[in-house]
Amino acid sequence: MKKIVQRLVLLAAMTAAGASQAQFAKPEDAVKYRKAGFTLMAAHFGRLSQMAQGKLPYDAKAAAENADVLAVVARLPYAGFVEGSDKGETRAKPEIWKESAKFKEAVDKNQAEMAKVVAAAKTGNLDALKAAVGPAGSSCKACHDNFRKD
Amino acid sequence: MKKIVQRLVLLAAMTAAGASQAQFAKPEDAVKYRKAGFTLMAAHFGRLSQMAQGKLPYDAKAAAENADVLAVVARLPYAGFVEGSDKGETRAKPEIWKESAKFKEAVDKNQAEMAKVVAAAKTGNLDALKAAVGPAGSSCKACHDNFRKD
Repeated sequence: MKKIVQRLVLLAAMTAAGASQAQFAKPEDAVKYRKAGFTLMAAHFGRLSQMAQGKLPYDAKAAAENADVLAVVARLPYAGFVEGSDKGETRAKPEIWKESAKFKEAVDKNQAEMAKVVAAAKTGNLDALKAAVGPAGSSCKACHDNFRKD
Repeated sequence: MKKIVQRLVLLAAMTAAGASQAQFAKPEDAVKYRKAGFTLMAAHFGRLSQMAQGKLPYDAKAAAENADVLAVVARLPYAGFVEGSDKGETRAKPEIWKESAKFKEAVDKNQAEMAKVVAAAKTGNLDALKAAVGPAGSSCKACHDNFRKD
């Protein structure tokens, strides 16, 4: 019975991966897609982060516009970590797929922190933005440290 | 008088370009940014296009989700065509900057067609999507033909 359950779980996981993978014709497409998502996330989070740190002048309207983009692009890259996309032009560590529960936890944390940055940027309050940016940046770094090659 | 006006127009144009460029620390960052935008635009427009062509099963919910992403990412790449970003790892033709009015016209056309695709995808009507996808694809191709190296 235990074996049957194990096999069913594995089958379900493979089916889910298959459905996700079907969005990309080739694993390289998934790699390119997730990199593009990270580039845009970094650009728009970066501008908010620079405003929070006083490296860019704080502009509430620009902050809200960046937040609108960030709200969409921050959730995109993770769809690109499909099975079989651990090869080629990528710094993704095998742990992403080997320790997928731990990776998912890190992704969920990042998504939650980015959502807080988006909300803070839309308040028009610089102090709210300052408070949100630090933990969000740490959640980026945590994932890079554990799941990205140098 | 005419010369003064010309100089003022030039100064205004340079200031606008400067403000735009200030979003990117280096021209290479602008190139990377616009490529990422095009990658995501192509991925999400591509899924809608495949549904319209019967290459992917039509799924109204998935179409609307892709449209939500497309609405944001389709307007991003063009901010990356800053002055000085005609070099390096790019297929951008010099005409983008030399014939900037013509380029802007092509970009505006593409933005308008993408907006129609987004609206059509959110109606839940496959025929509406089919009608919008063709002209949108043509507006991508027109820009590639005139402003992108092979």
